[in-house]
Formats: sequence, C-alpha cells, structure tokens
Amino acid sequence: MKFELQHKDPKSKARAGEITTDHGTIRTPIFMPVGTAGTVKAVHTRELKEDVKAQIILGNTYHLYLRPGLDILQQAGGLHKFNGWDRPILTDSGGYQVFSLAGTRKITEEGVMFKSHIDGSRHMFTPEGVMDIERKIGADIIMAFDECTPYPCDYAYAKNSMERTHRWLKRCVDRVDETEGLYGYNQTLFPIVQGSVYKDLRERSAETIASYGRDGNAIGGLSVGEPAEMMYETTDLVTNILPEDKPRYLMGVGTPANILESIALGVDMLDCVMPTRNARNGMLFTSEGIINIRNEKWKDDFSPIDANIGGHVSLFYTKAYLRHLVHAKEMLGAQIASIHNLTFYLWLVNEAREKIKTGEFASWKNMMVEKVSRRL
Amino acid sequence: MKFELQHKDPKSKARAGEITTDHGTIRTPIFMPVGTAGTVKAVHTRELKEDVKAQIILGNTYHLYLRPGLDILQQAGGLHKFNGWDRPILTDSGGYQVFSLAGTRKITEEGVMFKSHIDGSRHMFTPEGVMDIERKIGADIIMAFDECTPYPCDYAYAKNSMERTHRWLKRCVDRVDETEGLYGYNQTLFPIVQGSVYKDLRERSAETIASYGRDGNAIGGLSVGEPAEMMYETTDLVTNILPEDKPRYLMGVGTPANILESIALGVDMLDCVMPTRNARNGMLFTSEGIINIRNEKWKDDFSPIDANIGGHVSLFYTKAYLRHLVHAKEMLGAQIASIHNLTFYLWLVNEAREKIKTGEFASWKNMMVEKVSRRL
Ligand SMILES: [Zn+2]
Ligand SMILES: [Zn+2]
Repeated sequence: MKFELQHKDPKSKARAGEITTDHGTIRTPIFMPVGTAGTVKAVHTRELKEDVKAQIILGNTYHLYLRPGLDILQQAGGLHKFNGWDRPILTDSGGYQVFSLAGTRKITEEGVMFKSHIDGSRHMFTPEGVMDIERKIGADIIMAFDECTPYPCDYAYAKNSMERTHRWLKRCVDRVDETEGLYGYNQTLFPIVQGSVYKDLRERSAETIASYGRDGNAIGGLSVGEPAEMMYETTDLVTNILPEDKPRYLMGVGTPANILESIALGVDMLDCVMPTRNARNGMLFTSEGIINIRNEKWKDDFSPIDANIGGHVSLFYTKAYLRHLVHAKEMLGAQIASIHNLTFYLWLVNEAREKIKTGEFASWKNMMVEKVSRRL
Repeated sequence: MKFELQHKDPKSKARAGEITTDHGTIRTPIFMPVGTAGTVKAVHTRELKEDVKAQIILGNTYHLYLRPGLDILQQAGGLHKFNGWDRPILTDSGGYQVFSLAGTRKITEEGVMFKSHIDGSRHMFTPEGVMDIERKIGADIIMAFDECTPYPCDYAYAKNSMERTHRWLKRCVDRVDETEGLYGYNQTLFPIVQGSVYKDLRERSAETIASYGRDGNAIGGLSVGEPAEMMYETTDLVTNILPEDKPRYLMGVGTPANILESIALGVDMLDCVMPTRNARNGMLFTSEGIINIRNEKWKDDFSPIDANIGGHVSLFYTKAYLRHLVHAKEMLGAQIASIHNLTFYLWLVNEAREKIKTGEFASWKNMMVEKVSRRL
C-alpha cells in the first residue's frame, strides 16, 4: 500500500491524498460504507460502484467469521471474489463486536472467549487468530485486534485495556509480518490508537502506534457516546502525533457534521453504519439538511430526494414516493434511502477533497456543517 | 389501444402479437410483474426496465386507493409519474383483495362494503366508484370490477356471482365510456370472464364478455386452488370463445410451467406474485429448474445464479453468495432473488414468443415445461 499526500488545507489540518492498493486507488478524505456480512445492506454491488461511487467498503470480521465462515470465503478466493466487489476492502478485527457481547465474553491476556449471537457456540479470538482470519477474508487493509473501551470508562480500566491492546498489537504485527496474503495481492495492517478520553493515555497510545511505522494508522474508541467536543479534542491531539505521511482512519464516525469536523482535524478515512442504518428508519441526509421522510410534510413533495448530489437514485425518486414506500413498509424504501444516504456521504467527502485542493476547505466546512446539521 | 396479431403457432393455440398503448408497445405473450403498492417489491424502477426488461407492470387498486391514496396519486399526475415507471401499467379492480377480506366485507347489488386492513376504516367499492378510482390511478389498461370466486365454489353461488359480475360489467362499461382519462392519454377497460370451473357458466360468461367488443379480455377466477388440469381445460374453453383479434389476459397465473401451458392455449398476458413472493423465501426459478437457495448444496456453488438468461444480476452473483445473504436475512438476498426470478419470467415469455415466430413453440414448450418444473 502506498499513500501520497497531495494537498494540505492552509487554514485547517485537512489533507487530500491518494492511497494505492492492489485493488485500485482511494482518493482521500474518504468515507467507507459498511458491508457488515459481505453486503452493504440493501445496496447492490453495481449500485455501490456506479451510483454511490464508493471507493472502498468495510467488512466485519466477527460477522464474516461466523457466517458464511472462513471455509466458504477461502473456497471463493476471498471476500472480493465472494461478493463481487473488486475495489479495495478493509476489515475490522471483530474486537468491537466481541467486546459488545457483554456477559457472554471473557477477556484474558491470551484473547477473548465469546459466544456466537447466532447459535450460542463458543469461540476464541486471539491477536494471532484474528490476523489469520483477516488473511482468509482477504481485505486490502486489515485492522489490529484491539479493545474498544466503552464511554464512560474509568481511568484504571482504560489504562489497563490500552496496555493490553498495545501488547496485542505486537502479537498482531508479528503474525502479519511472518505470513502472507493468500490470494496473490498485498494486505496491510493498521494499528489502532486507544486510551478512551484521557489525554495522557491517548498521547502514549498514539506514540506507541506511530512507532510501528505501518502503512496507515487508526483512531479507535471514539464515537461511543462521549460528547462531540471530547471526540474532536481527542482526535486533534492524536492527529498531531500520528505521522503526516500515513493515512489516518477515524473508526465509526459519524454524522455528516462529524465527518467534516474530523477531516478538518487531519483525518483521511472514516466509516459509519449511520447512513445505512438511519436510512432504514427513514432518516435522510441531504445537501440541504436532515429529512425525516416519514413526516406528513413530505407526502405531496414531488421534488427529487436531492437534486444537488448527482446520483441517479437521489434524482429519480421523489420525496413523496419515498415517503409512501417507507409508510407502506416496502423494502424499496430502505433500498432508496440507503443508496441516497451513501451517495450523499460520498458526495460530501468528494466535495471536501475538492475544497482542500483549492484551499477553500475551512470556510466551506463551517458553512456546510451548519447546512447538513439542520432539520428540514 | 391497438392489438396486432403477428404469428400463430401451427401446432398449438399460441400466438405472438403486439399491443400499442400511449406508454409504448408490449410484445406478447407477456408476463407482467406485480407492483402492488406502486412498487414491484425490492426492485428499482431502473432495474425493472434495464435488467428485468419488463414491458408492463401491474398496480393494485385496493392497495393504492388506501395508500398513498387518490389525492396524492392525482397530485403526482397519476401512478406513472408517482413511481417513475413510464411504460404501460395495468390496474386490477381491487375486487380480488376486497373479496379476500372475508368476514370484514359485505356484498350487495350496489357493491362491496369493506374495512381497510391498515386502519379498519370502512369503504365502499362500486363498479362506478372503482372506474373513477382507476381513472385517478391512471393505468393504461384498467380492469372491470368483478367477483373472483374461491375454489371450491358451489354451482349456485358461482352462477349468481357471475351474473352479478356481468351486471357490474355493464355499469363499469357505461362509466368508462362516459368519462375520460385524467392525464391526457387513453385508458382501456378489459372485462373479466368468471364462472368458476363450470363449463356452461364459463361459456356464457365468455360469450357475454366477448359481446362487449372491448380492446382486450381477461379470464379471472382461476389459479385459486383448483387442479392445474381444470385450470387448463377452463382456459382452453374460454380462449375458444374470446375473439382472436383481441389480447387475452389470464389473471394471477402462475408457475413457469403454468405460463407456458397457458400460452399454448392462446393466452397473451399473465401476471403473478409468485416470482417475487417466492424469491423472498429463497425459491429461484431458473432455466435449469427450481432452486431452493437455502439448501446446503448451494453453499459452495460459486457458479452464477443463471448464466443462460442474460440478466446482469443472474450472471453477476453466485449461488453461494445468494445463499449466504438469504441465511443471514440480508435484504440484498430478497432483492437479488426478486430481480433474478422476474428476469427469468420475462426471458421465458420472450423465448416463447421467438419460438412462436419460428413455428417451433409446441415441441419447445413440452421440453421446457419439464425443464423448468424439475427441482435442482
Ligand atoms: Zn458510527
Ligand atoms: Zn399468482
């Protein structure tokens, strides 16, 4: 993997760059749609490429490991071949899901023992094991096995957890460096900064992560319930430490406003289930603001969902029609809203990139944050 | 509306023709996907045109009347404008749904009083009222308000019901002939043959319906639980009476084999929810036979869903991937299966048309009926 830093915004820490992988390039800043179980929910692969214009998608190691399972994925020749997505893929480590299974999981120095949410069967994730799993899934970018601490989280727990995450990182790095991708292309490991909202922990973690000199670095443990200001402060602090010549991935963030603010703080990659999950509940993110399409006021609004962002779906279907589908509980409603929201997110980060290139990002960002946050 | 009879198969009653409407032409024999509430479930309008290659879709008057309601449809400029489907549309009369609401509906000579399945509100459908509703929905082909008798149905009930349906037809015809379409294009009324499985009733009904000399005629009250042989015998008898120079629409039929057999009996138009409904349960109709994609045997079958029928979706996704999606209850599974099944149905009737044109239909039909009926 290669990262080329192409532009720096003069009035913020925003950057534009390009990541090159064996499955093609990614122009940053970038938003990555989440394809939990090998599918971005309700969106066809072709739509993801041609309408949404996604450049990279996520897969969830926990879900893919349980279903369809590694045997099938390996026989298919990896996740790209399995789901037909031939552009870059990133997999998380499963840590986030496994640690969320409170009560049914047990953490030791070795790893985490957990029970499948599907059939209750017992499984163990270790740093080495997860690296082997991510090799079999075959994403271009694979994430280290870490603990994503909840919020709030007391200092002692956050410190112990971070230190264990660092010890686990060493084991992940060793395993990845002594193995190779199974499908003839390269995979690269991103380590993850943890430390909850404690400045000294975040500093230590960022320095530790940076010291590995990997191709890219991630910031985890944010957007877990802390106030937005705390998230921004922590991100700001960490991006000051992470190397400038490597892409920075802020995990699990967020609203359109969160995304713009994070880009302003020097973040290059982001992912979140929000555009697709909220779509399924009838919440639309548009270039004019946020729409609850269930509301009465849209019932006779025959204007396009969003005429400004250039996607087929957003231009073709009207608000009134989408409202009808959502009310009638028609699947097509969730499908349209999901494609629209993702198209909007990808449009937004591409606009940010263009503004960074022309040096206008900072003022544009302030205007847009207000615009995309208002409720219509 | 215009119908041109273009070819007649020498060894069966199958015909190929072309229907011309103000929203374009329909090449027959044709299968019409069902778009219950203004959407063919789980299928985007663009996919319906470009992948499925649907030429005409159905709308359900009962569902559209209740939701989004006539006000919204009229404000939109009719159903075509509301859902963005600019090819021909046919609407049923709502009779089938209303009569299915056993216990909550009351039939009189005037019409049917029923309760909404959505909110329990009371409504009355009369022949005149339904014609006005179908005017407002704005389909190219609108169906007369009839009673679709259940199976089994005793002779006395079938006879009385048929006679009332005939009296209602007169009222439908009068209303349609004294009104005009609301949106600047023509709408044409198809009357419906009833009479359950009783030969003398079916004969009388077919003669009555034919005597109106409308642009097309329909056969209702079949595929409601009677043995397939009875359905074919009744269809055969009715198509012998209905005029040759008008398209014949067999309502609510059926499996791929049913469709081929009905075409052999001189049917030109068919519709059924089966391809989409069964898709949502993981049943696939393919050019090689019927697949239950949930079965273990498909878990590592990385071949396309159906390589023979030329649709993007059927060629792009593998059986193993689709099986995974269906098992994981991912919406995309229902989406893929729905598009595939519809693509197959449209491929099948187009193949039938080609075989009719070359005079090879009868033998091809016998071969295909066996092929498409077998379970893989
Ligand atoms: Zn998120
Ligand atoms: Zn049917």
